[in-house]
Amino acid sequence: MKKFINDVDNVLLESLSGFASAHADLVNLHLDPNFITRKHKATDKVAIISGGGSGHEPLHAGYIGYGMLDAACPGHVFTSPTPDQMFAAAENVHAGIGILFIVKNYSGDVMNFEMATEMLPFESATVLTSDDVAVMNSTYTTGRRGVAGTMIVEKCVGSMAETGADLQTCKALGDKVNERTASMGVALTSCTVPAAGRPTFDIDHTELEMGVGIHGEPGRRREAMREADEIVKDLVAAILEDFNTRGLKTEHSEALLLVNGFSGTPLMELYLIYNTAAQLFTKHGIKIARSLVGNYTTALDMAGASITLCLLDEEIKQHWDSPVHTPALRWNR
Amino acid sequence: MKKFINDVDNVLLESLSGFASAHADLVNLHLDPNFITRKHKATDKVAIISGGGSGHEPLHAGYIGYGMLDAACPGHVFTSPTPDQMFAAAENVHAGIGILFIVKNYSGDVMNFEMATEMLPFESATVLTSDDVAVMNSTYTTGRRGVAGTMIVEKCVGSMAETGADLQTCKALGDKVNERTASMGVALTSCTVPAAGRPTFDIDHTELEMGVGIHGEPGRRREAMREADEIVKDLVAAILEDFNTRGLKTEHSEALLLVNGFSGTPLMELYLIYNTAAQLFTKHGIKIARSLVGNYTTALDMAGASITLCLLDEEIKQHWDSPVHTPALRWNR
Repeated sequence: MKKFINDVDNVLLESLSGFASAHADLVNLHLDPNFITRKHKATDKVAIISGGGSGHEPLHAGYIGYGMLDAACPGHVFTSPTPDQMFAAAENVHAGIGILFIVKNYSGDVMNFEMATEMLPFESATVLTSDDVAVMNSTYTTGRRGVAGTMIVEKCVGSMAETGADLQTCKALGDKVNERTASMGVALTSCTVPAAGRPTFDIDHTELEMGVGIHGEPGRRREAMREADEIVKDLVAAILEDFNTRGLKTEHSEALLLVNGFSGTPLMELYLIYNTAAQLFTKHGIKIARSLVGNYTTALDMAGASITLCLLDEEIKQHWDSPVHTPALRWNR
Repeated sequence: MKKFINDVDNVLLESLSGFASAHADLVNLHLDPNFITRKHKATDKVAIISGGGSGHEPLHAGYIGYGMLDAACPGHVFTSPTPDQMFAAAENVHAGIGILFIVKNYSGDVMNFEMATEMLPFESATVLTSDDVAVMNSTYTTGRRGVAGTMIVEKCVGSMAETGADLQTCKALGDKVNERTASMGVALTSCTVPAAGRPTFDIDHTELEMGVGIHGEPGRRREAMREADEIVKDLVAAILEDFNTRGLKTEHSEALLLVNGFSGTPLMELYLIYNTAAQLFTKHGIKIARSLVGNYTTALDMAGASITLCLLDEEIKQHWDSPVHTPALRWNR
């Protein structure tokens, strides 16, 4: 294992400290329990909190700031944060009108966020994200996994919260965006968890893992490595099939297309993937109205990528386009 | 070699097409000769053009847009673009008051940009970037290499050009930023050029390449892999020594600290590097006034990172902070 680390036990703390220091104009780091908040606490709005295992940066702390999250709770690498982190974050950012948790659907996260919810003295609700179409149950999940689409949910719900909308309105939008979002990923290499010191799974140089999870969990199947267009064709087909199975009409829809790198794949290849994916979706009658290409939900050092399609409506488009000012996502349309 | 590519000969074109399609609101792709311009041509300003071999994305095309570049000329992977590309780009974006080329100091780029300059019927000037302190001459260079600091030059010069400043004023700022910027990189793995199909250099799992170039060129020496703090200490020392040798005072200076990933290193590790680097520079009496952490000048799939320090003055700070709207850098302070 070659990584830029010192003591394996301190990786998370040192990385969080660097994050907080590099973005000291935007965030505050709180320790023991660990959570990160906006530099300036927001008032008169639903507080939006997310969190999960570390190793998926910039998810979630990179999305703290105006128009997105109020706080994030980082667990150890690929490990759920604990209820005391969520509780402390909620107490810190609660602005009087409730807390909305955005939680990727993994058993540990779901259980711990539920425990925090039960402890909280204020009103709260949860949006569970489950955009990964690859598998129904997996290493860490019952039901579909939440992956890169989570960031789209966080962006839209965060925007809605800034309007002063109430808790149920924010939750309803989050559930809708999740419902209208589907993702599928592929790995060319494994990731290596620092504490494990060796790759999570073995994969030959002639193979790929189709439908891989963002922790290196198994996908649909191990397949022979082949050219990019054929890989992308399968990812796109899986997404379209999922929308079709769930009765969501894609033809003549406007959509947001996110090509997400898992961190080990260069931007040059991600744009090549985007090129093919956009053509395939367009051919299917979908209008790609918004695009995003880059490392937004990563899997440590894994080489690989995922494609996410979010079917837009006027409300989702408005909240996607609205201003956002976070370390990892920033615009002012 | 496992990469998301189809035919090796089409990698660049397919990737550029994806880039242009994903950012159709910001850029136009011109083919044969290949160059990329802003969607909306700027008027009454010096036109800023950069370019170089591909494989360093988002450099340079990702920095096209308001407040930065007017055009970029992408060569094949790790290969200089040709004079006809630069000539065509210059003809397209010239707005009547001259062209400024920003060129990383590699022999092929320097020669080709010079040829384009000689062909041009309008006034032009060139800023050569040479921020890499690692080695004086290298595989593709006479003199120091231009690396991640190039992006800081592009940002500041781009901002100056938007004010309507003349060609010599823009060039003078670019030269000043380059003079006040120093970078040093380290590789944990090699990169793999698609057309070569195998790693550019061999490196053992117990080794690192200290001072590596962004094409995988040799650095100062092959060293034993060790903990991050020790690696960062050496990178920081090399940068400080360079400023010292060149008679640039660092104590009590304000600085921009850029921790740049070569593309194969996760953000979690880049923030850990930032954490240590910021502490070391601060201890040396430097005030880290601006920060940037991420993959800004990459080397295909190389695992590794570079540290860049730019000594700020009021003029550089003003132009760094000014609004920018490009695919890869966007803010509105």
